[in-house]
Amino acid sequence: MAKEKKFVEAITAMDVDFAQWYTDIVKKAELVDYSSVKGCMIIRPYGYAIWENIQKYLDSRLKELGHENVYMPMFIPESLLQKEKDHVEGFAPEVAWVTHGGHEELTERLCVRPTSETLFCDHYAKIVQSYNDLPKLYNQWCSVVRWEKTTRPFLRTTEFLWQEGHTIHATAEEAQEETIRILNLYAELCENVLAIPVIKGQKTEKEKFAGAHATYTIESLMHDGKALQSGTSHNFGDGFARAFGIQYSDKTGKQQYVHQTSWGVTTRLIGALIMVHGDDSGLKLPPKIAPTQVIIVPIAQHKEGVLEKATELKNRIGNFARVKLDSSDKMPGWKFNEYEMKGVPLRLEVGPKDIENNQVVLVRRDTREKEIVSMNELENRIPQILEDIQNSMLESARKLRDEKTYTAVTMEEFKDIADNKPGFIKAMWCGETACEEKIKEVVGVTSRCMPFEQEHLSDKCICCGKEAKHMVYWGKAY
Amino acid sequence: MAKEKKFVEAITAMDVDFAQWYTDIVKKAELVDYSSVKGCMIIRPYGYAIWENIQKYLDSRLKELGHENVYMPMFIPESLLQKEKDHVEGFAPEVAWVTHGGHEELTERLCVRPTSETLFCDHYAKIVQSYNDLPKLYNQWCSVVRWEKTTRPFLRTTEFLWQEGHTIHATAEEAQEETIRILNLYAELCENVLAIPVIKGQKTEKEKFAGAHATYTIESLMHDGKALQSGTSHNFGDGFARAFGIQYSDKTGKQQYVHQTSWGVTTRLIGALIMVHGDDSGLKLPPKIAPTQVIIVPIAQHKEGVLEKATELKNRIGNFARVKLDSSDKMPGWKFNEYEMKGVPLRLEVGPKDIENNQVVLVRRDTREKEIVSMNELENRIPQILEDIQNSMLESARKLRDEKTYTAVTMEEFKDIADNKPGFIKAMWCGETACEEKIKEVVGVTSRCMPFEQEHLSDKCICCGKEAKHMVYWGKAY
Repeated sequence: MAKEKKFVEAITAMDVDFAQWYTDIVKKAELVDYSSVKGCMIIRPYGYAIWENIQKYLDSRLKELGHENVYMPMFIPESLLQKEKDHVEGFAPEVAWVTHGGHEELTERLCVRPTSETLFCDHYAKIVQSYNDLPKLYNQWCSVVRWEKTTRPFLRTTEFLWQEGHTIHATAEEAQEETIRILNLYAELCENVLAIPVIKGQKTEKEKFAGAHATYTIESLMHDGKALQSGTSHNFGDGFARAFGIQYSDKTGKQQYVHQTSWGVTTRLIGALIMVHGDDSGLKLPPKIAPTQVIIVPIAQHKEGVLEKATELKNRIGNFARVKLDSSDKMPGWKFNEYEMKGVPLRLEVGPKDIENNQVVLVRRDTREKEIVSMNELENRIPQILEDIQNSMLESARKLRDEKTYTAVTMEEFKDIADNKPGFIKAMWCGETACEEKIKEVVGVTSRCMPFEQEHLSDKCICCGKEAKHMVYWGKAY
Repeated sequence: MAKEKKFVEAITAMDVDFAQWYTDIVKKAELVDYSSVKGCMIIRPYGYAIWENIQKYLDSRLKELGHENVYMPMFIPESLLQKEKDHVEGFAPEVAWVTHGGHEELTERLCVRPTSETLFCDHYAKIVQSYNDLPKLYNQWCSVVRWEKTTRPFLRTTEFLWQEGHTIHATAEEAQEETIRILNLYAELCENVLAIPVIKGQKTEKEKFAGAHATYTIESLMHDGKALQSGTSHNFGDGFARAFGIQYSDKTGKQQYVHQTSWGVTTRLIGALIMVHGDDSGLKLPPKIAPTQVIIVPIAQHKEGVLEKATELKNRIGNFARVKLDSSDKMPGWKFNEYEMKGVPLRLEVGPKDIENNQVVLVRRDTREKEIVSMNELENRIPQILEDIQNSMLESARKLRDEKTYTAVTMEEFKDIADNKPGFIKAMWCGETACEEKIKEVVGVTSRCMPFEQEHLSDKCICCGKEAKHMVYWGKAY
């Protein structure tokens, strides 16, 4: 047991130093390595496999909803970026500039895309003529670059991977429907696949995306009580369409501007998985997203028949779950720790005695419950357990989130909670940016969203006492 | 018919102007649009769907062979790029440089990756300790940037999409096996999926990759007789390992350098599909790679029951093929032209008379053969036809390639063929770069490869008359 112990001890406990705990998991679960480029990460095979599973789910759902994938250039000429005023103001301070190609200086510098609205608009203006061409439901999977001062793997990196959807529609109603449809899809991804409960709502004017009419968000709560913006969906109205001249002739032959949306989720979701589900033994992955759902650890594998049986089981389980057999010469206890660190949902142990008794030992990563199961029952029992893990992980995360969600009706209460109880704080707001800024200054929290599910906590804005317009989720955020 | 005619006439004939024919197809089949960034293309949904099918096939085959996907940063610090001398010399003239992040000038400029050997090496040096850690079989899907003066969609663009595999092995033998294994996989992709016959062989010293010990290539021949390098696989020996200090302790505890490979195919393959299979009506896609394999065009679709039947057929065919129904209000003839332009392998026409007779009309894109098939037979007949199209497209491409492959034993013959008969020219070579350079100067062709299947055409080098070492495929290349 000595070795195992050591392996576990190498991780900082969550309660001791949450940031260090996070970094430890990221490294020890082999999700990421640091690169020689400041702020850029290397996504290692295990981390990338999680991203691939997110992609697989989202890509097939987006296609079912009629979206098509495209690929836009990674460069944006400076003049193109400047076409929409609010947008360039929002992004110019954080873009990387290419100034030289080969040995020559460029006549116009190019920014590495921080997001691609301008490129999509430029393209749409060229290819759209009539109402027959609408809607266009385009998406792309790529990386984007935002020059960040402080970075953390997955949560905030100079370069990150994402999908960015950019759609155009004939009417404002259709654009709004699309914006919400995608927000719901993101919530579905988080809750049903990643087992991360989210609050759906709208961002305030202050927090919305540069150039958007309205930004919608899903907000999740991490183990340390900090919020994480986990996906956003923007309705641009016809702002970009006017700036870029994206017009179509309607059924009467009249020229109209299109209505536009954009939306994205990023590798940041992997950070959410760590901080919502992880514990002091490492990562904990919901079965639906886990690259390996069942890890088989043979016991006394040098004994006759053990590896053969383990291989046979692997082949059987491979028909209904993502399974791996670790037949390396490490000690079983060492393997237990390794796969706990990597958050594999279910461990199957099989040794000489188990074989004698026609049974295996199943150990859940989430609850550590151990169960002895007949070898004849694996096809029934393993899918049941995996489903149960998936459901109870969402359940636990929701319970924790609810426990860390507070209500404030006075500024004193507000400040007291913010100082002492990390989590979401629900409080009423008048809708004025001045109050939002004052709350940030005095209480130290930002508005996360105006949730779709509004509650009436009081008649008055918690800050100025004037008539309240919205209940808002507030919090400290990543 | 007038409209159809017009649609077809909009394409330049292949024999009139091959380059323009190519550009016309790229635009009219909606594969690509030009972007506002010089030399960068927008890959439109139809073009991207072809790339996704290439990815799907190759990614699953690579995973079967034990490869894992990762993601490296898109930036390489200048100092890192310079670590391997030959490599930096090869790439420095054609990289894009980032010099500013936000409003600040960087202390060290970053190049946008033209290829990622240096990043993989840097990472491998950190994560590899012992023979237990080997091999590492990593791959990544990404875009790379090479600053090109003259660009053409898919064939040569400033930014392009590819996969780049980077593997490290304990022994030189294993690295060589991997290099060849991947070359064979690429050949399999081209021949079995894209229906493009290839010549497998080794590049000469002059033509090999910057920093490689040996470069292997698959070379295909386009309709105009020009060659296209369609995929390369490099064995680096331990050159990069020494430059980057990638060492492992072997079973005896001795420090050893790893042996390394890298390999890639790009969106250029889409250019090959166009130029190998296309004709004056447009693109011609092999069924295995076609985003849509069967297009249903209803005839007299306003008549009762036609669209219902067409939808019913679509649902049935959807169980075994990628099928679309075009129920837009365009004329059938217009639709015929559109899907010929897009190269959909099989067209299904169904109208009132067909319904009366319980039949459909099937029209092949490759041969234009028309066949009347009972509706009861679709499950049998359509897969047969698709398979036959796949096979006969490879057959035709091979026939054309063979017809355009010539043999020369004297310089006069060599020059005569090169001037008058575009295609591959087989000729003997002594192995000296001087002769290769002279051939380029005098005959105007470059060495494409030294094929694995050698033939003995003569004892002497076609250029200097000294002892011949290799038979070489020569040609003009994209």
